[in-house]
Amino acid sequence: MYKKYNSNKIRVMALGGLNEIGKNMTVIEYKNEIIVIDAGMSFPEDEMLGIDIVIPDITYLIKNKEKIKGIFITHGHEDHIGALPYILKSIDVPVYASKLSVGLIKVKLVEHKMEDINLNTIEPRQVIDAGSMSVEFIKNNHSIPDAFSLAIHTDQGIIYHTGDFKIDLTPIDGEVMDLHRVCELSKEGILLLMADSTNAESPGYTLSEKIVGEGLFDLFRKASKNRIIVATFASNIHRLQQIINASKRFNRKVAVSGRSMVNVVSVAKELGYLDIPEGMLIDLNDIHKYEDKEIVLITTGSQGEPMSALARMAIAEHKKVEIKQGDLIIISAHPIPGNEKLISKVINCLCEKGARVVHDEVDIHVSGHAKQEELKLIQRLAKPKFFMPIHGEYRMLKKHAELSQELGMPYQNIFIGKTGDVLELDRNGARFNGTIQTGQVLVDGLGVGDVGNIVLRDRKHLSEDGLMIVVVTISKEEGRVLAGPDVISRGFVYVRESEGLMDGAKIVLKDVLDECEKKGIKEWAYLKNSIKDNLRDYLYQKTKRNPMILPIIMEV
Amino acid sequence: MYKKYNSNKIRVMALGGLNEIGKNMTVIEYKNEIIVIDAGMSFPEDEMLGIDIVIPDITYLIKNKEKIKGIFITHGHEDHIGALPYILKSIDVPVYASKLSVGLIKVKLVEHKMEDINLNTIEPRQVIDAGSMSVEFIKNNHSIPDAFSLAIHTDQGIIYHTGDFKIDLTPIDGEVMDLHRVCELSKEGILLLMADSTNAESPGYTLSEKIVGEGLFDLFRKASKNRIIVATFASNIHRLQQIINASKRFNRKVAVSGRSMVNVVSVAKELGYLDIPEGMLIDLNDIHKYEDKEIVLITTGSQGEPMSALARMAIAEHKKVEIKQGDLIIISAHPIPGNEKLISKVINCLCEKGARVVHDEVDIHVSGHAKQEELKLIQRLAKPKFFMPIHGEYRMLKKHAELSQELGMPYQNIFIGKTGDVLELDRNGARFNGTIQTGQVLVDGLGVGDVGNIVLRDRKHLSEDGLMIVVVTISKEEGRVLAGPDVISRGFVYVRESEGLMDGAKIVLKDVLDECEKKGIKEWAYLKNSIKDNLRDYLYQKTKRNPMILPIIMEV
Repeated sequence: MYKKYNSNKIRVMALGGLNEIGKNMTVIEYKNEIIVIDAGMSFPEDEMLGIDIVIPDITYLIKNKEKIKGIFITHGHEDHIGALPYILKSIDVPVYASKLSVGLIKVKLVEHKMEDINLNTIEPRQVIDAGSMSVEFIKNNHSIPDAFSLAIHTDQGIIYHTGDFKIDLTPIDGEVMDLHRVCELSKEGILLLMADSTNAESPGYTLSEKIVGEGLFDLFRKASKNRIIVATFASNIHRLQQIINASKRFNRKVAVSGRSMVNVVSVAKELGYLDIPEGMLIDLNDIHKYEDKEIVLITTGSQGEPMSALARMAIAEHKKVEIKQGDLIIISAHPIPGNEKLISKVINCLCEKGARVVHDEVDIHVSGHAKQEELKLIQRLAKPKFFMPIHGEYRMLKKHAELSQELGMPYQNIFIGKTGDVLELDRNGARFNGTIQTGQVLVDGLGVGDVGNIVLRDRKHLSEDGLMIVVVTISKEEGRVLAGPDVISRGFVYVRESEGLMDGAKIVLKDVLDECEKKGIKEWAYLKNSIKDNLRDYLYQKTKRNPMILPIIMEV
Repeated sequence: MYKKYNSNKIRVMALGGLNEIGKNMTVIEYKNEIIVIDAGMSFPEDEMLGIDIVIPDITYLIKNKEKIKGIFITHGHEDHIGALPYILKSIDVPVYASKLSVGLIKVKLVEHKMEDINLNTIEPRQVIDAGSMSVEFIKNNHSIPDAFSLAIHTDQGIIYHTGDFKIDLTPIDGEVMDLHRVCELSKEGILLLMADSTNAESPGYTLSEKIVGEGLFDLFRKASKNRIIVATFASNIHRLQQIINASKRFNRKVAVSGRSMVNVVSVAKELGYLDIPEGMLIDLNDIHKYEDKEIVLITTGSQGEPMSALARMAIAEHKKVEIKQGDLIIISAHPIPGNEKLISKVINCLCEKGARVVHDEVDIHVSGHAKQEELKLIQRLAKPKFFMPIHGEYRMLKKHAELSQELGMPYQNIFIGKTGDVLELDRNGARFNGTIQTGQVLVDGLGVGDVGNIVLRDRKHLSEDGLMIVVVTISKEEGRVLAGPDVISRGFVYVRESEGLMDGAKIVLKDVLDECEKKGIKEWAYLKNSIKDNLRDYLYQKTKRNPMILPIIMEV
């Protein structure tokens, strides 16, 4: 909880994106008005068994609903828009986003049957009035077109939030990040810079997307007789454009595989972000009508996701595409940490089918995030008074803070925060002051937040050692065992292998029940505990395992 | 099954280590005699929930027990010796290994209460007679001392099995791989080369272990006031020696943390593989008696393993070591694929506590496996007639085969095999002919092989969606419900959140039971299926989840 809140100070609070990759969401509050930047999701950690996605806890926003002026979207990646449908179910506020982002958000809203929600499309340099603040959208470069940094204008100065960005001096759409505007803003006075830390540990300068076009051209030229399959992120529309350009140059048709790829290509084409020559795009069902050298497939699965199109091709479970000897497969993406083994498996399977797989080479993928030299450049241009590294794990934020210090930013003007920390600032100073409620809301099927620690702990226990159920029917009056004990196990050991073990367990249980009957115990909690303790000891001694034990007593 | 087996041909069969990393084990059979090379374990895949380790299926060896002349160990890494205790329980055969390997195997046997098993210690160039074959141990270089390649002499020619190797021209113990002997063998005639493919995808030459010594010296010199903690693999004894050398140079005491590190340091010291000055090694309990600048800790946990010493330090759960501001932590290891996220988490936690973490830099770790130039060199020296790439995933084997072709090996003389494939050869020719039984045996607690696909499938199901148990007591005669239906769930949803859901479930169940009672159904299998189907539909409709449903009927 925060203390002594002064509404004349600006309060900056992250609901996600600090000390983590993903689930980006920032709240800025000033004079009892709130703006929200992004509403992202993240993928579950390994220990979140069965969870589909993770979204930020927005209790603070729900409590302060009436103050919210709008949600301002920097760009259309899942870690910036993925939580929107869930959040718009709880708070009804305007959403502002670029044309492409609006298109991608609409796809999500349709899936959630929320198609009637109105979205506001924004142009670069457009300014949205939000009471005591106004929000200006500033073109930047990233691995998705139509990405923005945001300048939040206040009478205390400007907060410049980079969003996810890189500085691409030769971008595919010709539009370099609007550094001129950043310079103008710095003249007006940037109070706080909040900048993307994803690549803060990487020295140098992120290469231009254009490099990838050259790499693809080379590969396409050499594979003149083979079918080409390129896996990449669906949202990387500039990448898709470059694949299309290379296909055009070498007279190949293009087919698309994977749900998100089909969705994005359709939205991007409709909105004019993809330039595909007439007749070039063919249906996946028609690829057999062409020779190998006439075909390029663009597919999802660059992260080895088990249900993705590429992974299904790799294990011969794709309904329409069969990998064959000589296929050239280009994985135009870098593994997201945690996905290395999945990708490796897919590559091995593809190789076994005779495909040649090109991956992890410099000129078939570039990052969408600024490296150290770009981070220094943006700070030099912005000349902020205060600095807050955002979007990254702790060591990235830390490294970004060190870079900032190297540029002369005083240590006490740098704020490495945690999700929920309140940074309170005005033109005279800044400090952390209190916290607000934040957290992870787990989405599992239709359930939002109904799976918590206890459920996850049980799932983990079940996944490691399985369970053993003991059922016994007892007469209410006499406390006599009428049926059972029956023992049922799942996920524990082979039943076939464990006959002796199960017989031994029943003997243990009989003893416990006899004992209780003799003593006339009718307190079922006591009986249950006694069953648990004795069976646990027996099973551990015999197997060195601790299955979950569930005693169930039926009274008749 | 193999066909038309001719005992005058040599048969080479892998029980593990082909199309996988780990679980290395090769069988060579000739004139009704068998030798076994290594007996390794591997770590479970992500989907093997609850499994501790994986060992090869040795059914073939058990069936041919009386033919086996011995198990010949190349070196003391887990993926080459880890399955030994399990295998020696089934087959009683001599084991031959280097002095250090014998020491490390003994530690394992003691843990399995098998300390009275006799092991044979071998010197370099020693030859063990194995009937129609003889096995010669040839010194090589690897990330553990006392590692061997093996030359199997037969009257058909020599099989040269490299084991895991690199060629270190400036090794820490001064002993370069015995390339002279390889040259002599090639004069005698190497029929088949079997060579390590782990780094076949990496161009160039693996750097000498000596490089790491220089890197450590630099880091130690710069951290003159801070405590230093180095995490590495326990078995990398040359690495440990270099840490000790650097500690000596900068007048630091050394303490050791982590069970396997303590074990290995003790064995290696006793056998003379570690040279530690008198008084330098101190007890972990005594580190507080020294200043930070006087201390080096050597610890396990370089892979971020959650229960390892370093991971416990990172989350402040290590009983004896508390990370503090200024600690220099050196992770002297490369992430094994799949461990990247674990390591990253540990690093973030260490950084949050104010430590400086050095990792993934060129001069603090080198690989123990030969890269492309070394692989080419060994093949040039060996001049084999046939070639079989071993120890690697498919794409590594494939790449290694391509390298071999580049050196002029005819395509038809290269054999990329799968575990279980039988390569039949003599001086006139070689071909794959049939297969033998192989597979993965899962070890869970004391259970070896008692967890199979059904148990794993259940664990996966339970881990993702949890379970719902329905219990009902029914009278035998009338088929009347006497108690229940009771519904118990675990790992499904918060009970608190799900009251409505559970009430709904009970109504569904009541309907099913009423229906069956009305129809006079006493066939419990039918009733159980009816409960399952109706409840599954109801729960999926309400939650889009499919918990495991276990109906239990008690007859009274």
